[in-house]
This record gives sequence, structure tokens and C-alpha cells, in this order.
Amino acid sequence: MNTFKRVDREDIGFFLNLMPGRVITQDEFMADYTHDEMTEYGHFAPEAVLKAETAEEICSVLKYCNDKRIPVTPRGAGTGLCGGCVAIHGGVVLSTERMKKVLEVDAQNMTASLEPGVLLMEFPKALEGTGLFYPPDPGEKTATMGGNAMTNAGGMRAVRYGVTRDYILGMDVALADGTLLHLGGKTVKTSSGYSLLHLMIGSEGTLGVLTGLTVKLVPEPKVNLSLLIPFDELDACIQAVPKLLSCGCDPTAVEFMQRDVISCVETYLGKQFPDTASDAYLLVRLDGPSMQALEPAVDTVTELALSLGAKDVLLADTDERKESIWNARGAFLEAIKGSTPTMDECDVAVPRNAIADFVRQMTSISKDAGLRILSFGHAGDGNLHIYVCRDGLDEAEWKKKLDGTMERLYAAARELGGQVSGEHGIGHAKKHFLTESAGEEQLKLMRGIKAAFDPNGILNPGKVV
Amino acid sequence: MNTFKRVDREDIGFFLNLMPGRVITQDEFMADYTHDEMTEYGHFAPEAVLKAETAEEICSVLKYCNDKRIPVTPRGAGTGLCGGCVAIHGGVVLSTERMKKVLEVDAQNMTASLEPGVLLMEFPKALEGTGLFYPPDPGEKTATMGGNAMTNAGGMRAVRYGVTRDYILGMDVALADGTLLHLGGKTVKTSSGYSLLHLMIGSEGTLGVLTGLTVKLVPEPKVNLSLLIPFDELDACIQAVPKLLSCGCDPTAVEFMQRDVISCVETYLGKQFPDTASDAYLLVRLDGPSMQALEPAVDTVTELALSLGAKDVLLADTDERKESIWNARGAFLEAIKGSTPTMDECDVAVPRNAIADFVRQMTSISKDAGLRILSFGHAGDGNLHIYVCRDGLDEAEWKKKLDGTMERLYAAARELGGQVSGEHGIGHAKKHFLTESAGEEQLKLMRGIKAAFDPNGILNPGKVV
Repeated sequence: MNTFKRVDREDIGFFLNLMPGRVITQDEFMADYTHDEMTEYGHFAPEAVLKAETAEEICSVLKYCNDKRIPVTPRGAGTGLCGGCVAIHGGVVLSTERMKKVLEVDAQNMTASLEPGVLLMEFPKALEGTGLFYPPDPGEKTATMGGNAMTNAGGMRAVRYGVTRDYILGMDVALADGTLLHLGGKTVKTSSGYSLLHLMIGSEGTLGVLTGLTVKLVPEPKVNLSLLIPFDELDACIQAVPKLLSCGCDPTAVEFMQRDVISCVETYLGKQFPDTASDAYLLVRLDGPSMQALEPAVDTVTELALSLGAKDVLLADTDERKESIWNARGAFLEAIKGSTPTMDECDVAVPRNAIADFVRQMTSISKDAGLRILSFGHAGDGNLHIYVCRDGLDEAEWKKKLDGTMERLYAAARELGGQVSGEHGIGHAKKHFLTESAGEEQLKLMRGIKAAFDPNGILNPGKVV
Repeated sequence: MNTFKRVDREDIGFFLNLMPGRVITQDEFMADYTHDEMTEYGHFAPEAVLKAETAEEICSVLKYCNDKRIPVTPRGAGTGLCGGCVAIHGGVVLSTERMKKVLEVDAQNMTASLEPGVLLMEFPKALEGTGLFYPPDPGEKTATMGGNAMTNAGGMRAVRYGVTRDYILGMDVALADGTLLHLGGKTVKTSSGYSLLHLMIGSEGTLGVLTGLTVKLVPEPKVNLSLLIPFDELDACIQAVPKLLSCGCDPTAVEFMQRDVISCVETYLGKQFPDTASDAYLLVRLDGPSMQALEPAVDTVTELALSLGAKDVLLADTDERKESIWNARGAFLEAIKGSTPTMDECDVAVPRNAIADFVRQMTSISKDAGLRILSFGHAGDGNLHIYVCRDGLDEAEWKKKLDGTMERLYAAARELGGQVSGEHGIGHAKKHFLTESAGEEQLKLMRGIKAAFDPNGILNPGKVV
């Protein structure tokens, strides 16, 4: 373990001089920076929060902190779910929240260059009128684009369009010693040495601090519609997924939801979901050049779903209907959070045809432990979000039951050929499970990489490796 | 520089015992293994060629050679263009040419698992009747799937479908010390620590030896057609590319070709190309569910191309016409090779809207040097293949002119925001240009990674870093 230096008055003086008015040291303004969206994983106060505005500032902070051995924890909007942006070893939190400029939309190359603090929900405004869009669609729209890149966020459109990794063409990254690297660029192909770009994607700020990124855009499909497909049986619902994926209708999203979760969201939003009479639902989104062009795909999906045991296929082709469904889908996490005093989360990805198996095992794990476990997720890409709810348990009982339950959930995913995290990352909360899943040999290589990039270990210490 | 041990009689004894009948040591059987497709980069005889049949054999060879400090150069079909699979420091060539089994086609998960020596041209046979296909389409069909993965090969369908990297879900890789790693798997999403998988892709056998891979498949489009679009002006031809890409017709391929190259291929194949009256051509391929569904795209492309200065738009929708065009396209490299006693190659990728600029600069570099330079390539993704031909020059003059010309070509690409290699890789032939392009900081990180994976430097020494 490295020994880190505490931030002292001289350090604060340096930071204040570098970024006047953008250094937080008082407790009362610090609270938001002590945790991410999973307060369950604890509160950790940094010694200072620095709000950078330029790549040069980030480089200066890093060079200074590297020389002094002060930990630096990069942070976007703090919407993560694994404690990745929390300063568990103290030091400074380096926030990119003020770096919100979209620098260029290059319609010819179909790229955009932007600062890391641009919010996912704000980015589309910069693309208006270009006919282009940025496909990754994680549920949390107040996340930053930089945070998405550094966790390789997935989202709902991954079935058709892939994940954030597939849309990052270039990154400017400040190394621990303050060197600024330009990785990739506007080219769409490269075989030019080891891909430092792809190594950086999903590295959660442990190898470098993102100061800018270039993303790929694609022509925006002109129309979309959604199909809500109720099933009486969970099994039939899940087993329909691989068949829908390979029927040639090229769905943008295939989401899976259960009645329990829908009830939570109805309470949370105070709104009725269009259909609640069934146990399990698939939500399929289709994109295309015109409604007419989508008709054959709608017919194919409808026929196929009905032949596989669906009770109905409800078409949502008006904005109002689509919103009522997708807003509910977007609120699942908050709704579940609201239904229990605390919870833990598991974000495994399994091969698509193993989802039914996994959900079955989850149900029996839930029964065995006597814990309420809710799940929803991206059935189309095998990525499930699972929430183990504390409900009325006291602290001791909750801790005891939770540990065994999480172990069993991850073990089940592992046995099915799954991965620890589909899209939320590792942070500090999932490190133990990464080690179990990837094995000591892979961890050793990851530590070797970490040492090559950050020999003093100042970058987001205690995360990932 | 590491000092390596020479292969002696005891070592050969070990190899023969491990893989009887599959160890080559006699010069007369070795010739094919001393070079790749660019014999211009020299012949280097290994001390032995080992033809592995299993991952276990590969692990045993590596463990043995690592202990003894014998260089190991992994090799697929030897179709590379940068000397990546050539044993420039002696030692053993570890060939995967006998590992040709497709182990599983999993239609539900839309994946296939295969040994690394499966040829690109043979793999489609394993997918017949599944309705699935593997989109990457590099020109060299006798390459191995493993070689494609380890160079991140690109190919002609990258415009729509992406490159090899986008289709590798899992890899089994033997490390230098003989440890077998299982990276990734059948899951389509993961955010589980540093992506060792993506680091391995394109690492050209310098970080590990591929023993198996799992690739992503997608539903096969039912029909395709090609449009051959002649232009009188090179400039108009190239400038049409970004507009075609963003017109919403979602082309699978947009290739660029010039009359000079077409003449070469007519001579080489002894067949007429469908049109030779123009200076420059675009070749656009569209995939879709039916010819009827493609009609609007054909109309859009045709109208747009004519409005941008195209002389005509020739539709190739019969197998015969498509073959005559694409076979010619596939034979460009061989045809150029056949037209000159020797040549050098440059495989830069530039932003798509910079292609016209690059081609203009190339023309003036060619004039200045008095060297014939032919080019063709993947206009749709900014990746050009450029061949500098020696023709009648004597050795001294050729060397002198060539060096300056290559420097100028790479410098031009760099200035336009380009990358050293779009899809052929670095090998030993392009190392110098990688250093110039990526810079010392990135090279230092790459060397740090190399040291973490292969501390004794036995894996494909002298390549990439």
C-alpha cells in the first residue's frame, strides 16, 4: 500500500492560485462529493474538491499531486453505482463538472469533440439539425459523457448500436505525471500499436484523467416505435429474447421487466403503467427510416411473440405512449431505491441465452435468503440489474444475509460464463468480485498496467485493482 | 536489448517429444516461414517451426522458451504486410496453421468459437444455414481468423459493420510464461476492469499467443447490390464520399479506385473491368432485407452521386456483375505487385473528409520523387492503401527515393490527424513510423505494458514496440 501525503495549507495555496474560486475545502460544501448514487457504500470526505476548467489545469494538478504523493480522484457528475468517483484514500477530488463545452460537431466526419463534463442529456442539443445522433443510451441521463467513457457505460440501445466503447474514437488524457496524451482521433480504423485508447475506456480514472473526447456519430433513424409484450410466465418471456434477436428485425432495445418492479415505479411516479395484468414484460424498440418501413418488422415481432406465449403485443407509436413506457423504465432504479431503506446492487452480464437460467437461480437465492430481490435490465444483451433490498431487516441480520446473497449471485453469473459488471464498473465496491471472477493472473496483469501508467499510485487509489 | 538463447539439439528434442512430426528444422521446408506477403522487408529464417495443434502445446512451448529465453514468433497464414509473423531475432516460429476447427456456432447467443488457424475464407462454411454471418471482410481471404484478430484487420465492410475488434467477444491467450488466460466470453457487454481483451486485439503476438477466439455474429442481410460510380475528376470523386456516408443509405462499403490500378488488374486477371473510361471510381455496396427495400437507397445514392459530378451510376445486382467488380477489387494488391519488381506499402487512415487532401498530396509527392505511386482503398473509412513502385530504378536510387517518399507520406497523414496503420499493423517494418506518430510518451506506456506481460521479451521480439 502506498503512503499518501495529506493536503496541507501550502497545497491549498497552490490549488487556489491555479484555479481561484474553484477550490472547495469547507465541509458544508463538500457533502455532495463524499459519495456517488450508492450511499450504501459509505461516505468519504476528500481534503479538497478542485473544479477544473481546462486540460492544462488538470495536468498541473496531476503533476503537483504526483510529486507530492497526494491522491487524485477524478469525478464527473457522481452518478456512478460502485463508488468509483469517491476519494476513499482522501486527497483531492478533481471534478470535471465545469468542463461542459461541445467543442465541435463535424458532420462530414460524423464526429463530435467535447469536454468530459458534458451531460448525456445535454449532448443531443448540440446535434440538433445535423441529422446525426449519439447512440449510447444509459438510463442515467445526468451522467457526464466523460464518466460514461471511463466506465464504458452500456445502456438500452446496446442491442443494436453497441456500448460507449464502440463510439469513442479519441481521448485526450492526462497521465499521473501531468503529461497530456492524445489517443486516437477522427479516424475510424486503426491498427497502430497497443490500443491505449481501449485500455483507457472503462479504466475508471485509475490510469489517467480524461480531459476531452471525440465520439462517433451515426445518421439518426427518422422514426421509432416500441412494443410492450406481456407474458404470463417469466420463463416464456425470457426465452423469447434470443428468438426475437435473431428474427431479422434488428431491434434497438429489448428490455425485460417484472410486475414487482412496475408496481414500485407506479408508486414512485404516481402514474399507471399501460399494462399491469401480467407477470413479466418485454419492451422492444425498433428504429427505422419510416413507419412504413418498420411494418414488416412489427409484423414479424408480433407473430413471433404470440407464437412464443405472449398474451398480447401493445404498440406504442405516439410520443405520449412511448414516454409513459420509457419514463417508467428510466425510473426503475429510483423507484426501487424508494421502496427500501437501503439495498445492494449487482450488474452482471451473462450470455443472452443464459438469462432465463440466471433469473431462475436468482429467484431461488431470494427465497433461500428471505430477501426481496428485484431485477430488470437489458435482456437483449444479457445485462441484468439486480437489487437486493434490506426492507425491515436490522443491521446485523442485513449484513449477514447480504454477503452470502451477493456471493451466490456472482457465483451463479460466473458459472453461466458471465462477467462481474455489464456496464456499471468496479469502483471500490466490486473489487472483491472482480478478483474472484477474473482470477489472480489477470489481476496481476492489470496491476502491471496500473504501475506502468501511475507508478506512484496517486490516481483514484483503491479502485478497480 | 535482450540476449536470446539459440535453439540447440536439446530444445529440438523437447519440441519433437511434445509435437512429434510437427517440428521443422530443415532449410528446405523452412522457406515459406521466412517472410510474409511483403518479401521486400527481408527473409529471416527461424531456428525451428513448430506446428501446434492444441492450446496446451502452445502453453508448453511458451513455458519452455520463456525459461530458456528462446524467442517465439506466433504465425497464422503469413499473409501480413509488415513482417509481424517473421522471426527477425531467430528462435521458433509457432504456427497455428493446423488449428482449423470451428468448435461451436451458438445461434442463440449469435457467437462462434473457433481455433485461431481457421481461414477467413473457410469460416463462412461453418455458418451456412444459420442465417448468421461474420461481417469483417479484409481483402486477403487466405488470412487466419487469429491473424485478423491480432492485427485488428479492417476490411471493406467496416463502413457499416466496423472492424475485427468490434467482433471479438472472447479470446483464450497463452502468456509468455505459459499461463492460459480466458478473456471475455459470450457476453456482449462488460465493464469489468481494464480490457485485457482489447489490449490483446491488435497486439500482433507481442503480449500473448492466441489459442482460441469467440466472435460475434449478426443476422445476414438477405440481399446486396453494388453501384459502380465513375467520375472524371479525382477530386469530385473523393469529395462525394462524406456526402454519400451521411445521406442515410447506410452503405456497407464505399471503395475508391483509380484508372491506373484498374489497368493493372485487367492485365493481371486478363479480364475487362465493366467501365474504364473514367479517371476515378467509387464502388458502393448496399445490404438489405430485399431488393425492394433497397430501392429508395439506390435512388438516393444515384441522385446524389449525379448531382456531385458522377458521370453515371452502374448497378451491379446480378452475381456475375458483382463478381466481376469485386474480384477485380480483391486482386488489386496482387495486380500492383505484378506490375513492378518491388514496392513499399503504406496503410494510413485519415479522417474521412481528409482523403481528398491526402490523395492530392500523394500525387504531388509522387511527382516530386518521380516515383509511380498507386493507391486504392476504403474511402468510406478513411483508410487508403498506397503502393510506391520501384519499377526500373536501381537499388541505390530506389532506396534513396523511397525513404524520403515514405517519410513524406506518413508526415502528410499525421498532419491531417491520421494514424500510421489503418488495418495492416506495425510488425517490424512500421515501428519507426509508429514512434514518430504516437510519440515517445505513448511508446513508453506500450513498453511498460509489454514488460508487464512478457518480462523476458521472448514474445515476437522486435515487433510493435
